[in-house]
Amino acid sequence: MSILSILMGGSRNEQSSAPRDDCPLCTSEGGQLIWRGAFWRVVSIVDPHIPGYVRLILNRHCAEFTELAKPEQQQFFKLMIAIETLMRDTLAPEKINIASLGNYTPHQHWHFIPRWSDDAFFPDSIWSAAHREMSQRVRATRDAQATLLFAELPKVCAKAIY
Amino acid sequence: MSILSILMGGSRNEQSSAPRDDCPLCTSEGGQLIWRGAFWRVVSIVDPHIPGYVRLILNRHCAEFTELAKPEQQQFFKLMIAIETLMRDTLAPEKINIASLGNYTPHQHWHFIPRWSDDAFFPDSIWSAAHREMSQRVRATRDAQATLLFAELPKVCAKAIY
Repeated sequence: MSILSILMGGSRNEQSSAPRDDCPLCTSEGGQLIWRGAFWRVVSIVDPHIPGYVRLILNRHCAEFTELAKPEQQQFFKLMIAIETLMRDTLAPEKINIASLGNYTPHQHWHFIPRWSDDAFFPDSIWSAAHREMSQRVRATRDAQATLLFAELPKVCAKAIY
Repeated sequence: MSILSILMGGSRNEQSSAPRDDCPLCTSEGGQLIWRGAFWRVVSIVDPHIPGYVRLILNRHCAEFTELAKPEQQQFFKLMIAIETLMRDTLAPEKINIASLGNYTPHQHWHFIPRWSDDAFFPDSIWSAAHREMSQRVRATRDAQATLLFAELPKVCAKAIY
């Protein structure tokens, strides 16, 4: 364990840090990489139903939020606020869904999901059955907004943890 | 607007604070009340599939986390850590799911959901179709653990924001 790791409060859960060969978030980015910080990275998810879907993923392997060291938790809180703020500014969704499930992949990752009343699942969760298709026209508008979101996210995330 | 409200940083979104007659989280506790603080309350949810299910609900009406004043956000972060810690200590679930959706009820509330590989929905979200029933024996054990969780939560929440 390095002095830096002790100073950063990372000692408590050192054993959970080792990358796992069987974890898709240890062996891949888990999406299109948008920004990478010391503790967390942001990826965009290509989902035919949800333009602007992003995930905030811990760089090291750790299952639960309360296993994280304090600096990791503090950066999460700052990034969560930064991502939601930018998502509201660029996409103006009717609701933002934020979730950490991890039942399939117990490696800390948080879903940031913009929701509209005409999206495939609304008002149900995106883990429910689809109710409808988004029109091509609406989809094109939201894809353009999502492109702006992805372009702005690196700046906003870097600033949030500065 | 009171001086106290200004000092507490509550001025920015004062307009969202008015209780709504059509919001179930404005017109009721939204579950069995376990603890109430100045900004947030904790309720337990009676769910036949998920013993120990709790929700952290903002006392005032507000849709998105980034609409909240800073002291409300800061207390949320402290309470989130306190609730998850106690949930792990009392229930020892295989995973904890945390989510803020609000598509049906756009009033800030966060689900804290203990998950086990033998629960009705695992590994899917609890908003998916049930796969199985929990056995009576397992259910009885977890109900007892949940009773302990609910008994300890008021102390733990009060301490977290102290």
